Amino acid sequence: MDINLNVDRFNGLLYELRQLDVRNMYNNDFFLTWEKTDDELKAVWTVADILRTLREGNVSTRVFDSGLGISIFRDNSTRTRFSFASACNMLGLTVQDLDEGKSQIAHGETVRETANMVSFMADVIGIRDDMYIGKGNAYMHAVSDAVQEGHREGVLEQRPTLVNLQCDIDHPTQCMADMAHLLHEFGGPEGLKGKKVAMTWAYSPSYGKPLSVPQGVIGLFTRLGMDVVLAHPEGYEVMSEVEEVAKANAEKSGGSFTKTNSMAEAFKDADIVYPKSWAPFAAMEQRTKLYGEGDFDGIKKLEQELLAQNATHKDWTCSEELMKTTKDGKALYLHCLPADITGVSCEAGEVDASVFDRYRTPLYKQASFKPYVIAAMILLSKFDKPDVLLERVEHRGRERKKGTEYVCNLPIL
Amino acid sequence: MDINLNVDRFNGLLYELRQLDVRNMYNNDFFLTWEKTDDELKAVWTVADILRTLREGNVSTRVFDSGLGISIFRDNSTRTRFSFASACNMLGLTVQDLDEGKSQIAHGETVRETANMVSFMADVIGIRDDMYIGKGNAYMHAVSDAVQEGHREGVLEQRPTLVNLQCDIDHPTQCMADMAHLLHEFGGPEGLKGKKVAMTWAYSPSYGKPLSVPQGVIGLFTRLGMDVVLAHPEGYEVMSEVEEVAKANAEKSGGSFTKTNSMAEAFKDADIVYPKSWAPFAAMEQRTKLYGEGDFDGIKKLEQELLAQNATHKDWTCSEELMKTTKDGKALYLHCLPADITGVSCEAGEVDASVFDRYRTPLYKQASFKPYVIAAMILLSKFDKPDVLLERVEHRGRERKKGTEYVCNLPIL
Amino acid sequence: MDINLNVDRFNGLLYELRQLDVRNMYNNDFFLTWEKTDDELKAVWTVADILRTLREGNVSTRVFDSGLGISIFRDNSTRTRFSFASACNMLGLTVQDLDEGKSQIAHGETVRETANMVSFMADVIGIRDDMYIGKGNAYMHAVSDAVQEGHREGVLEQRPTLVNLQCDIDHPTQCMADMAHLLHEFGGPEGLKGKKVAMTWAYSPSYGKPLSVPQGVIGLFTRLGMDVVLAHPEGYEVMSEVEEVAKANAEKSGGSFTKTNSMAEAFKDADIVYPKSWAPFAAMEQRTKLYGEGDFDGIKKLEQELLAQNATHKDWTCSEELMKTTKDGKALYLHCLPADITGVSCEAGEVDASVFDRYRTPLYKQASFKPYVIAAMILLSKFDKPDVLLERVEHRGRERKKGTEYVCNLPIL
Repeated sequence: MDINLNVDRFNGLLYELRQLDVRNMYNNDFFLTWEKTDDELKAVWTVADILRTLREGNVSTRVFDSGLGISIFRDNSTRTRFSFASACNMLGLTVQDLDEGKSQIAHGETVRETANMVSFMADVIGIRDDMYIGKGNAYMHAVSDAVQEGHREGVLEQRPTLVNLQCDIDHPTQCMADMAHLLHEFGGPEGLKGKKVAMTWAYSPSYGKPLSVPQGVIGLFTRLGMDVVLAHPEGYEVMSEVEEVAKANAEKSGGSFTKTNSMAEAFKDADIVYPKSWAPFAAMEQRTKLYGEGDFDGIKKLEQELLAQNATHKDWTCSEELMKTTKDGKALYLHCLPADITGVSCEAGEVDASVFDRYRTPLYKQASFKPYVIAAMILLSKFDKPDVLLERVEHRGRERKKGTEYVCNLPIL
Repeated sequence: MDINLNVDRFNGLLYELRQLDVRNMYNNDFFLTWEKTDDELKAVWTVADILRTLREGNVSTRVFDSGLGISIFRDNSTRTRFSFASACNMLGLTVQDLDEGKSQIAHGETVRETANMVSFMADVIGIRDDMYIGKGNAYMHAVSDAVQEGHREGVLEQRPTLVNLQCDIDHPTQCMADMAHLLHEFGGPEGLKGKKVAMTWAYSPSYGKPLSVPQGVIGLFTRLGMDVVLAHPEGYEVMSEVEEVAKANAEKSGGSFTKTNSMAEAFKDADIVYPKSWAPFAAMEQRTKLYGEGDFDGIKKLEQELLAQNATHKDWTCSEELMKTTKDGKALYLHCLPADITGVSCEAGEVDASVFDRYRTPLYKQASFKPYVIAAMILLSKFDKPDVLLERVEHRGRERKKGTEYVCNLPIL
Repeated sequence: MDINLNVDRFNGLLYELRQLDVRNMYNNDFFLTWEKTDDELKAVWTVADILRTLREGNVSTRVFDSGLGISIFRDNSTRTRFSFASACNMLGLTVQDLDEGKSQIAHGETVRETANMVSFMADVIGIRDDMYIGKGNAYMHAVSDAVQEGHREGVLEQRPTLVNLQCDIDHPTQCMADMAHLLHEFGGPEGLKGKKVAMTWAYSPSYGKPLSVPQGVIGLFTRLGMDVVLAHPEGYEVMSEVEEVAKANAEKSGGSFTKTNSMAEAFKDADIVYPKSWAPFAAMEQRTKLYGEGDFDGIKKLEQELLAQNATHKDWTCSEELMKTTKDGKALYLHCLPADITGVSCEAGEVDASVFDRYRTPLYKQASFKPYVIAAMILLSKFDKPDVLLERVEHRGRERKKGTEYVCNLPIL
């Protein structure tokens, strides 16, 4: 196909973008959603929608003729890796993976040096480091500080900006994609006001899943005037600092943030449910300490305790019965994927197979926002006037995939 | 160099392409050659030649300004990996590898989910999965079905098409490249009619080599009116379904398909020989079953049996003596590489060192068609009017490698 | 930003490039600096500076619309990998890694075949193979010979050229980057004449570090009329062939090449110091032999001996005391990184932490030249008229990162 842009939609979104103050995003990192203003978050969703509109209209969104996106993952990650790769590709950046061992890159001097050594052509650095409490976000800041210093000292021609692809505190690309999905499903921010969302723990036969999703969700969703309920069994508390963020957000936005130890209470009349396993914060703190001490017997013992503790909460599952108690029995079911599906991926897990089946398409759509959200974060951090840039991109009218509609009078692009 | 296109050759090939009905290739996968029409196969060879002509003339064949080619390999594969990467690069796609463990991606729900999660920006997916009988081709279909559903449901903006980079049944990119080589060596399809080709088993000290090459060869070469002889020791039968395909092809094309247990008989007066080791189909079926049962003792035992069985057929080798019995002693020797060369890569193997030496250049040329064949398959599946596209590419006249011939009046490309 | 080129600087460098005879670099490899003429080395530095000037001015240096850079590493290598990837990206090439096992690719037939199989779309091949004495450089020549033959025989449409990313003899991309740094710091070749540089061994708790850096340094720095002193404890000799090169160079350039077993003597009044650990040449020869024989007990024993031998030279360290004895106490400290820093990365190492700290920014700058040096080597080997090419690149005026300065009258690029 040739270019087939929905121009009205594009212009509408561009108009929205122009109302927002994004000046502070330029040449800046994206660590935690609650470090960003409302305008800045809106800009991410708006630019994500613009990029999607352009792509669906076969307009190339390539804004870098060359350049690198560096990805640093402490853990295997197919989905996040592909989302980052897709985002970079869409903008014209090539991904180069930094595959250092899990511990090798940990110390101050090494972080500083490696960060500079891999950044000579880097426009952006994406990091996933969610394993150890108190470490991931700190590591990202260390990398960012190092490349800023490198740029100041004339080593790096530019400052590579950083996108947090999941840390110990927040999972901003996931939660921003989740919210992009909700904004589409509920007709924008107005449609979300006063809606009840249940962010609840759910049983999984594995242990030690990161806290960044529940923390990211309560830290973000409370900003949109929603009634956010955090539910988990006793002992599965999340970071108290993030709960404070959620409380303050709710107060400001006119929503609410409440906690309960009952999944049923959280699901009751909920418009949106997000049942998902995570590890107790205190246990993850302990695990981090044990790793630091190299106490592998202690780690093994802790793992056994956690699995046993989990197993006492198998009733925390997103069952058909619970779904019936939600608003009209039709709450929107969210998950960051992959889910532990009862009878499919495990004997007993986070969700009934029939519930998951019914929501498969919405779940995939939820995930589909992530590459666009990441691309939007990159774009907003690399270009001082994103609105002008996107107008130029539209005006350029370059086909992403070469068209075959006509032969005569072809512009030589 | 600047652009230096052989315009006559380009126009001739484009004219040929225009005679072919390729409508059904658009938005479609390439699984098995015998699922394609004669026109469709011809289109692959023609487009491959056009791409090669353009590249040799320094005309950029980049038809994607951005986009991803996903590669999924169940096995290490330098050659196929590079061929796919080269094909993608030539068209403007960036390769992103999906490196999941061998078994991890096996189940229904996971295949469906992963296929969609990696495909948000994917234009094409290349899969090599040849290890287990009854699994590889089925897996590819599962992936294709999943992304088609994802596209239908609005998750994926487009349908990524799939290229079979080797399955348990066929090795279409290899065999189409082999045939491209033959078409060049023998002056097109007319020159191949009535030629005798010996697809024969040959001894190798390793065991369990895939059946996809001999199966692919008899399933394809029989369509060109050739006399195809399949030779192997008793017990090294290929899939009977593919033999049926070969028989039907031969009947339709005016060629023949015969079988023998004598390598000498196959080589006698042959115009083309393709001596290559493979594993018995029945044994591979058994191995697949043993893997499914996790019976590793059984696998080890089977391996020993197969090696012992192989060792009784060391006389099945492409020797100078046998080569002398071919047409004028000068049959064209084919191999998909790497070959087990007697006295070079092993003590006793598939071919004499002197034979291999003499055919090294033709063998490398044979291999050189693969990137172009893969690129042609991708192009034909992604563009509804490949002829118009290629005309536009030529008209655009963009240098692949920037030229240095003149300085004045440079067009700004 | 839009384009913001320092045109005077660009024109000045282009003028310099035009004075140099680079005809023999076209379609040629880069193995050892002493195989290149003075003009050719100057061309590398000049083109590196031009590329940096263009990039800093946001002018796209993309000269390939598509194409591959193949990287072959026998060893893990974050820094070299990123430098090569950055260089390729800057020119428009996509990197494809060849990940074969350490020994798998060693034999004649295999080298020849693999080299061709990965090169169908390859413009350049970068190889790092520094582990075994007598092997690395030889392997690179084997690859180069193979692809030249492939091109001659019509297998490869072009001849991929080769860049030595470190071999057993030289480390040209490192040493050329080191020298680019010196040329910038000392005001060009005139500023370097008569300067004293101490290339000295230093203690490290690890063993077996490559000899390619000290060898590369004495083989290159002696060409610029510098007084090069090579210092090491007895038993840490480098290849005598390279010492001969250094002597001949010094004679021709009007500099000098001397040796000493005293670090203090080397540092005395030095303008530049390069203290760095390496393994004794003779021991590396022995290790190569032991590997060839598969004598792993012998290797372990050798390792213990070498570590013990190292440990008797802990006083060979770049201390504050030694630095005070250099010219005005302010010699420029060089290192190829990563350094073994006393009290930081190890208990006792190559350099005092306070010395390293003071020189961090210059060290990072030193490293920052490498991607540009590699890109310059590629460019000079792939384009017959690099001056015309670079003029066209400047004239094209394509933004690397799309600009946002103006909206009206935009050229459609």
